[in-house]
Amino acid sequence: MMAMSLDGFVARSDHTLDWLEKQATEGEDHGFEAFQESVDVIVMGSGSFRTVLGFGEWPYVKPVVVLSRSLASEDVPENLRDKVEITTLKPEALMKAFAERGFQRVYIDGGAVIRSFMKATLIADMKISIVPILIGEGIRIFDDSRGDTDLELVSIEKFPSGLIDLVYKVKTA
Amino acid sequence: MMAMSLDGFVARSDHTLDWLEKQATEGEDHGFEAFQESVDVIVMGSGSFRTVLGFGEWPYVKPVVVLSRSLASEDVPENLRDKVEITTLKPEALMKAFAERGFQRVYIDGGAVIRSFMKATLIADMKISIVPILIGEGIRIFDDSRGDTDLELVSIEKFPSGLIDLVYKVKTA
Repeated sequence: MMAMSLDGFVARSDHTLDWLEKQATEGEDHGFEAFQESVDVIVMGSGSFRTVLGFGEWPYVKPVVVLSRSLASEDVPENLRDKVEITTLKPEALMKAFAERGFQRVYIDGGAVIRSFMKATLIADMKISIVPILIGEGIRIFDDSRGDTDLELVSIEKFPSGLIDLVYKVKTA
Repeated sequence: MMAMSLDGFVARSDHTLDWLEKQATEGEDHGFEAFQESVDVIVMGSGSFRTVLGFGEWPYVKPVVVLSRSLASEDVPENLRDKVEITTLKPEALMKAFAERGFQRVYIDGGAVIRSFMKATLIADMKISIVPILIGEGIRIFDDSRGDTDLELVSIEKFPSGLIDLVYKVKTA
Protein backbone atom coordinates (compact mmCIF):
# COMPACT_ATOMS: atom_id res chain seq x y z
CA MET A 1 0.00 0.00 0.00
CA MET A 2 2.48 2.55 -1.20
CA ALA A 3 2.19 5.41 -3.63
CA MET A 4 5.09 5.38 -6.08
CA SER A 5 6.02 7.88 -8.76
CA LEU A 6 6.23 6.27 -12.21
CA ASP A 7 10.01 6.39 -11.83
CA GLY A 8 9.88 4.32 -8.65
CA PHE A 9 10.12 6.73 -5.71
CA VAL A 10 7.95 6.71 -2.59
CA ALA A 11 9.27 10.00 -1.21
CA ARG A 12 11.76 12.71 -2.01
CA SER A 13 15.19 12.33 -0.41
CA ASP A 14 14.00 14.42 2.57
CA HIS A 15 10.91 12.16 2.99
CA THR A 16 8.48 14.83 1.70
CA LEU A 17 5.37 13.88 -0.23
CA ASP A 18 4.38 17.20 -1.85
CA TRP A 19 4.49 15.54 -5.31
CA LEU A 20 1.85 13.09 -4.09
CA GLU A 21 -0.25 15.59 -2.21
CA LYS A 22 -0.63 17.80 -5.30
CA GLN A 23 -2.44 15.02 -7.19
CA ALA A 24 -6.18 15.63 -7.62
CA THR A 25 -7.25 12.56 -5.66
CA GLU A 26 -10.00 14.23 -3.64
CA GLY A 27 -13.04 11.99 -3.35
CA GLU A 28 -11.17 8.94 -4.62
CA ASP A 29 -11.18 5.78 -2.53
CA HIS A 30 -7.78 4.15 -2.86
CA GLY A 31 -8.89 1.51 -0.43
CA PHE A 32 -6.65 2.65 2.39
CA GLU A 33 -9.29 2.12 5.06
CA ALA A 34 -10.40 -1.25 3.74
CA PHE A 35 -6.78 -2.28 3.43
CA GLN A 36 -5.99 -1.19 6.97
CA GLU A 37 -9.02 -3.15 8.21
CA SER A 38 -7.52 -6.28 6.63
CA VAL A 39 -4.26 -6.15 8.61
CA ASP A 40 -3.39 -6.75 12.26
CA VAL A 41 -0.40 -4.46 12.65
CA ILE A 42 1.48 -1.81 10.72
CA VAL A 43 5.28 -1.65 10.49
CA MET A 44 7.27 1.36 9.35
CA GLY A 45 10.69 2.97 9.66
CA SER A 46 11.54 6.11 11.58
CA GLY A 47 11.51 8.22 8.41
CA SER A 48 7.91 7.32 7.59
CA PHE A 49 6.97 7.69 11.26
CA ARG A 50 8.27 11.26 11.35
CA THR A 51 6.48 12.05 8.11
CA VAL A 52 3.18 10.71 9.45
CA LEU A 53 3.64 12.62 12.72
CA GLY A 54 3.97 15.72 10.57
CA PHE A 55 0.46 15.13 9.14
CA GLY A 56 -0.88 16.31 12.51
CA GLU A 57 -3.68 13.76 12.46
CA TRP A 58 -2.76 10.14 13.23
CA PRO A 59 -4.22 8.09 10.34
CA TYR A 60 -3.92 4.59 11.81
CA VAL A 61 -6.42 2.62 13.87
CA LYS A 62 -4.25 -0.49 14.06
CA PRO A 63 -1.16 -0.86 16.28
CA VAL A 64 1.96 0.65 14.70
CA VAL A 65 5.48 -0.70 15.22
CA VAL A 66 8.37 1.57 14.30
CA LEU A 67 11.68 -0.07 13.41
CA SER A 68 14.38 2.19 14.78
CA ARG A 69 17.69 2.02 16.57
CA SER A 70 17.71 5.76 17.29
CA LEU A 71 14.20 6.34 18.64
CA ALA A 72 13.10 5.46 22.18
CA SER A 73 9.61 5.12 23.66
CA GLU A 74 9.93 8.67 25.05
CA ASP A 75 10.16 9.97 21.45
CA VAL A 76 6.58 8.85 20.84
CA PRO A 77 4.10 11.67 21.59
CA GLU A 78 2.17 10.94 24.77
CA ASN A 79 -1.23 10.64 23.06
CA LEU A 80 0.18 7.89 20.79
CA ARG A 81 1.95 5.75 23.38
CA ASP A 82 -0.82 3.14 23.46
CA LYS A 83 -0.80 2.99 19.65
CA VAL A 84 2.90 3.04 18.75
CA GLU A 85 5.82 0.94 19.87
CA ILE A 86 9.49 1.16 18.92
CA THR A 87 11.48 -1.96 18.16
CA THR A 88 15.01 -2.87 17.12
CA LEU A 89 14.07 -6.39 16.01
CA LYS A 90 15.11 -7.53 12.53
CA PRO A 91 12.39 -8.60 10.05
CA GLU A 92 12.47 -12.37 10.77
CA ALA A 93 12.52 -11.91 14.55
CA LEU A 94 9.76 -9.31 14.35
CA MET A 95 7.53 -11.60 12.29
CA LYS A 96 8.12 -14.35 14.83
CA ALA A 97 7.18 -12.03 17.69
CA PHE A 98 4.04 -10.98 15.77
CA ALA A 99 3.04 -14.61 15.23
CA GLU A 100 3.30 -15.19 18.98
CA ARG A 101 1.00 -12.22 19.55
CA GLY A 102 -1.51 -13.52 16.99
CA PHE A 103 -0.73 -10.88 14.39
CA GLN A 104 -1.04 -12.65 11.06
CA ARG A 105 -1.40 -9.96 8.43
CA VAL A 106 1.31 -7.35 8.70
CA TYR A 107 1.30 -4.15 6.68
CA ILE A 108 4.82 -3.00 5.84
CA ASP A 109 5.16 0.69 5.01
CA GLY A 110 8.07 2.83 3.88
CA GLY A 111 10.82 2.28 1.30
CA ALA A 112 13.69 1.04 3.46
CA VAL A 113 11.51 -1.24 5.58
CA ILE A 114 9.78 -2.74 2.55
CA ARG A 115 13.17 -3.43 1.02
CA SER A 116 14.48 -5.20 4.13
CA PHE A 117 11.34 -7.37 4.30
CA MET A 118 11.59 -8.09 0.56
CA LYS A 119 15.20 -9.21 1.04
CA ALA A 120 14.05 -11.56 3.79
CA THR A 121 11.33 -12.81 1.38
CA LEU A 122 8.67 -11.92 3.94
CA ILE A 123 6.36 -10.03 1.57
CA ALA A 124 3.38 -12.04 0.30
CA ASP A 125 1.50 -9.37 -1.60
CA MET A 126 1.75 -5.70 -2.33
CA LYS A 127 -0.54 -2.86 -3.25
CA ILE A 128 1.08 -0.04 -5.15
CA SER A 129 -0.47 3.17 -6.46
CA ILE A 130 1.41 4.50 -9.47
CA VAL A 131 1.34 8.30 -9.45
CA PRO A 132 1.49 10.10 -12.83
CA ILE A 133 4.72 12.00 -12.21
CA LEU A 134 8.49 11.57 -12.53
CA ILE A 135 10.33 13.09 -9.58
CA GLY A 136 13.85 12.12 -10.67
CA GLU A 137 15.34 11.30 -7.28
CA GLY A 138 14.34 10.25 -3.80
CA ILE A 139 13.72 7.13 -1.75
CA ARG A 140 13.06 4.07 -3.87
CA ILE A 141 10.47 1.46 -3.00
CA PHE A 142 12.58 -1.27 -4.60
CA ASP A 143 16.31 -1.71 -4.35
CA ASP A 144 18.81 -4.24 -5.57
CA SER A 145 17.30 -7.56 -4.65
CA ARG A 146 18.68 -11.07 -4.70
CA GLY A 147 17.83 -12.14 -8.22
CA ASP A 148 14.35 -12.01 -9.74
CA THR A 149 11.09 -11.79 -7.86
CA ASP A 150 8.21 -12.99 -10.01
CA LEU A 151 4.87 -11.33 -9.39
CA GLU A 152 1.29 -12.13 -10.25
CA LEU A 153 -1.00 -9.25 -11.10
CA VAL A 154 -4.14 -9.61 -9.00
CA SER A 155 -6.05 -6.43 -9.76
CA ILE A 156 -5.78 -3.01 -11.26
CA GLU A 157 -7.89 0.09 -10.81
CA LYS A 158 -7.66 3.40 -12.63
CA PHE A 159 -8.71 6.69 -11.01
CA PRO A 160 -9.71 10.07 -12.49
CA SER A 161 -6.59 11.61 -10.89
CA GLY A 162 -4.43 9.37 -13.07
CA LEU A 163 -3.37 7.22 -10.14
CA ILE A 164 -3.46 3.48 -10.80
CA ASP A 165 -3.82 1.02 -7.95
CA LEU A 166 -2.10 -2.30 -8.58
CA VAL A 167 -2.21 -5.41 -6.42
CA TYR A 168 0.46 -8.08 -6.91
CA LYS A 169 1.10 -11.40 -5.24
CA VAL A 170 4.71 -12.45 -4.80
CA LYS A 171 5.16 -15.83 -6.51
CA THR A 172 7.08 -18.35 -4.49
CA ALA A 173 9.43 -20.70 -6.28
CA MET B 1 6.68 1.85 -26.06
CA MET B 2 8.96 0.18 -23.57
CA ALA B 3 8.51 -2.82 -21.34
CA MET B 4 9.64 -2.04 -17.82
CA SER B 5 9.91 -4.33 -14.80
CA LEU B 6 7.87 -3.05 -11.85
CA ASP B 7 11.15 -1.88 -10.32
CA GLY B 8 11.91 0.29 -13.33
CA PHE B 9 14.33 -1.61 -15.54
CA VAL B 10 14.10 -2.04 -19.32
CA ALA B 11 16.93 -4.56 -19.57
CA ARG B 12 19.46 -6.34 -17.42
CA SER B 13 22.88 -4.70 -17.16
CA ASP B 14 24.07 -6.80 -20.13
CA HIS B 15 21.03 -5.67 -22.21
CA THR B 16 19.35 -9.09 -22.04
CA LEU B 17 15.57 -9.42 -21.98
CA ASP B 18 15.08 -13.00 -20.77
CA TRP B 19 12.91 -11.72 -17.86
CA LEU B 20 10.58 -10.17 -20.43
CA GLU B 21 10.63 -13.06 -22.87
CA LYS B 22 9.55 -15.54 -20.19
CA GLN B 23 6.24 -13.71 -19.66
CA ALA B 24 3.24 -15.56 -21.09
CA THR B 25 2.32 -12.85 -23.59
CA GLU B 26 1.66 -15.16 -26.53
CA GLY B 27 -1.41 -14.08 -28.46
CA GLU B 28 -1.54 -10.70 -26.72
CA ASP B 29 -1.57 -7.57 -28.83
CA HIS B 30 0.44 -4.93 -27.02
CA GLY B 31 -0.14 -2.63 -29.92
CA PHE B 32 3.43 -2.68 -31.15
CA GLU B 33 2.43 -2.85 -34.80
CA ALA B 34 -0.25 -0.18 -34.49
CA PHE B 35 2.18 1.98 -32.55
CA GLN B 36 4.89 1.52 -35.15
CA GLU B 37 2.41 2.46 -37.87
CA SER B 38 1.80 5.75 -36.07
CA VAL B 39 5.42 6.90 -36.16
CA ASP B 40 7.71 8.09 -38.96
CA VAL B 41 11.07 6.98 -37.63
CA ILE B 42 12.53 4.93 -34.78
CA VAL B 43 15.54 6.06 -32.72
CA MET B 44 17.58 3.79 -30.48
CA GLY B 45 21.04 3.45 -28.95
CA SER B 46 23.71 0.95 -29.90
CA GLY B 47 22.83 -1.33 -26.97
CA SER B 48 19.23 -1.75 -28.11
CA PHE B 49 20.40 -2.07 -31.71
CA ARG B 50 22.69 -4.98 -30.84
CA THR B 51 19.91 -6.62 -28.82
CA VAL B 52 17.46 -6.32 -31.71
CA LEU B 53 20.07 -7.68 -34.17
CA GLY B 54 20.31 -10.68 -31.83
CA PHE B 55 16.61 -11.42 -32.37
CA GLY B 56 17.56 -12.69 -35.84
CA GLU B 57 14.44 -11.23 -37.41
CA TRP B 58 14.34 -7.46 -37.94
CA PRO B 59 11.07 -6.28 -36.34
CA TYR B 60 10.86 -2.76 -37.78
CA VAL B 61 9.19 -1.59 -40.96
CA LYS B 62 9.99 2.09 -40.35
CA PRO B 63 13.43 3.67 -40.81
CA VAL B 64 15.68 3.17 -37.79
CA VAL B 65 18.32 5.65 -36.64
CA VAL B 66 20.96 4.40 -34.22
CA LEU B 67 22.65 6.97 -31.98
CA SER B 68 26.25 5.88 -31.65
CA ARG B 69 29.74 7.29 -31.60
CA SER B 70 31.34 3.85 -31.85
CA LEU B 71 29.38 2.24 -34.69
CA ALA B 72 29.94 3.00 -38.38
CA SER B 73 27.73 2.31 -41.39
CA GLU B 74 29.84 -0.78 -42.10
CA ASP B 75 28.69 -2.26 -38.77
CA VAL B 76 25.14 -2.45 -40.10
CA PRO B 77 24.46 -5.85 -41.69
CA GLU B 78 24.19 -5.52 -45.48
CA ASN B 79 20.54 -6.54 -45.65
CA LEU B 80 19.63 -3.69 -43.28
CA ARG B 81 21.62 -0.87 -44.86
CA ASP B 82 18.56 0.64 -46.53
CA LYS B 83 16.66 0.48 -43.22
CA VAL B 84 19.21 1.58 -40.63
CA GLU B 85 21.42 4.63 -40.36
CA ILE B 86 23.98 5.55 -37.73
CA THR B 87 24.17 9.10 -36.38
CA THR B 88 26.21 11.02 -33.83
CA LEU B 89 23.73 13.92 -33.66
CA LYS B 90 22.47 15.03 -30.25
CA PRO B 91 18.71 14.91 -29.51
CA GLU B 92 17.88 18.52 -30.43
CA ALA B 93 19.93 18.43 -33.65
CA LEU B 94 18.48 15.07 -34.58
CA MET B 95 14.89 16.29 -34.10
CA LYS B 96 15.70 19.30 -36.29
CA ALA B 97 17.12 17.03 -38.99
CA PHE B 98 14.01 14.84 -38.76
CA ALA B 99 11.73 17.86 -39.13
CA GLU B 100 13.58 18.82 -42.30
CA ARG B 101 13.00 15.32 -43.65
CA GLY B 102 9.28 15.48 -42.78
CA PHE B 103 9.52 13.03 -39.88
CA GLN B 104 7.04 14.29 -37.32
CA ARG B 105 6.37 11.41 -34.95
CA VAL B 106 9.57 9.89 -33.62
CA TYR B 107 9.63 6.70 -31.58
CA ILE B 108 12.45 6.72 -29.03
CA ASP B 109 13.55 3.30 -27.81
CA GLY B 110 16.06 2.19 -25.18
CA GLY B 111 16.84 3.39 -21.68
CA ALA B 112 19.81 5.71 -22.27
CA VAL B 113 18.31 7.31 -25.38
CA ILE B 114 14.93 7.87 -23.72
CA ARG B 115 16.70 9.50 -20.79
CA SER B 116 18.66 11.87 -23.02
CA PHE B 117 15.48 12.87 -24.90
CA MET B 118 13.62 13.30 -21.60
CA LYS B 119 16.40 15.60 -20.37
CA ALA B 120 16.04 17.66 -23.53
CA THR B 121 12.23 17.71 -22.89
CA LEU B 122 11.64 16.23 -26.33
CA ILE B 123 9.25 13.47 -25.23
CA ALA B 124 5.56 14.27 -25.78
CA ASP B 125 4.00 10.97 -24.79
CA MET B 126 5.09 7.54 -23.69
CA LYS B 127 3.73 4.05 -23.78
CA ILE B 128 5.03 1.77 -21.07
CA SER B 129 4.24 -1.87 -20.39
CA ILE B 130 4.72 -2.76 -16.74
CA VAL B 131 5.94 -6.34 -16.45
CA PRO B 132 5.03 -8.30 -13.27
CA ILE B 133 8.56 -8.94 -12.07
CA LEU B 134 11.29 -7.31 -10.00
CA ILE B 135 14.73 -7.86 -11.51
CA GLY B 136 16.72 -5.89 -8.94
CA GLU B 137 19.30 -4.31 -11.22
CA GLY B 138 19.85 -3.35 -14.82
CA ILE B 139 19.31 -0.45 -17.19
CA ARG B 140 16.70 1.99 -15.96
CA ILE B 141 14.17 3.67 -18.21
CA PHE B 142 14.18 6.79 -16.05
CA ASP B 143 17.16 8.46 -14.48
CA ASP B 144 17.77 11.53 -12.41
CA SER B 145 15.87 14.24 -14.23
CA ARG B 146 15.79 17.98 -13.81
CA GLY B 147 13.01 18.37 -11.28
CA ASP B 148 9.50 17.00 -11.66
CA THR B 149 7.87 15.88 -14.86
CA ASP B 150 4.10 15.87 -14.54
CA LEU B 151 2.27 13.26 -16.56
CA GLU B 152 -1.31 12.75 -17.65
CA LEU B 153 -2.60 9.20 -17.75
CA VAL B 154 -4.23 8.67 -21.15
CA SER B 155 -5.08 4.99 -21.13
CA ILE B 156 -4.47 1.72 -19.39
CA GLU B 157 -4.90 -1.85 -20.52
CA LYS B 158 -4.50 -5.05 -18.55
CA PHE B 159 -3.46 -8.33 -20.16
CA PRO B 160 -3.86 -11.97 -19.06
CA SER B 161 -0.06 -12.24 -18.79
CA GLY B 162 -0.14 -9.60 -16.05
CA LEU B 163 1.45 -6.97 -18.25
CA ILE B 164 -0.20 -3.56 -18.06
CA ASP B 165 0.09 -1.11 -20.93
CA LEU B 166 0.05 2.53 -19.84
CA VAL B 167 -0.02 5.60 -22.05
CA TYR B 168 1.01 8.96 -20.57
CA LYS B 169 1.24 12.44 -22.03
CA VAL B 170 4.01 14.68 -20.72
CA LYS B 171 2.38 17.85 -19.33
CA THR B 172 4.08 21.02 -20.40
CA ALA B 173 4.35 23.85 -17.91
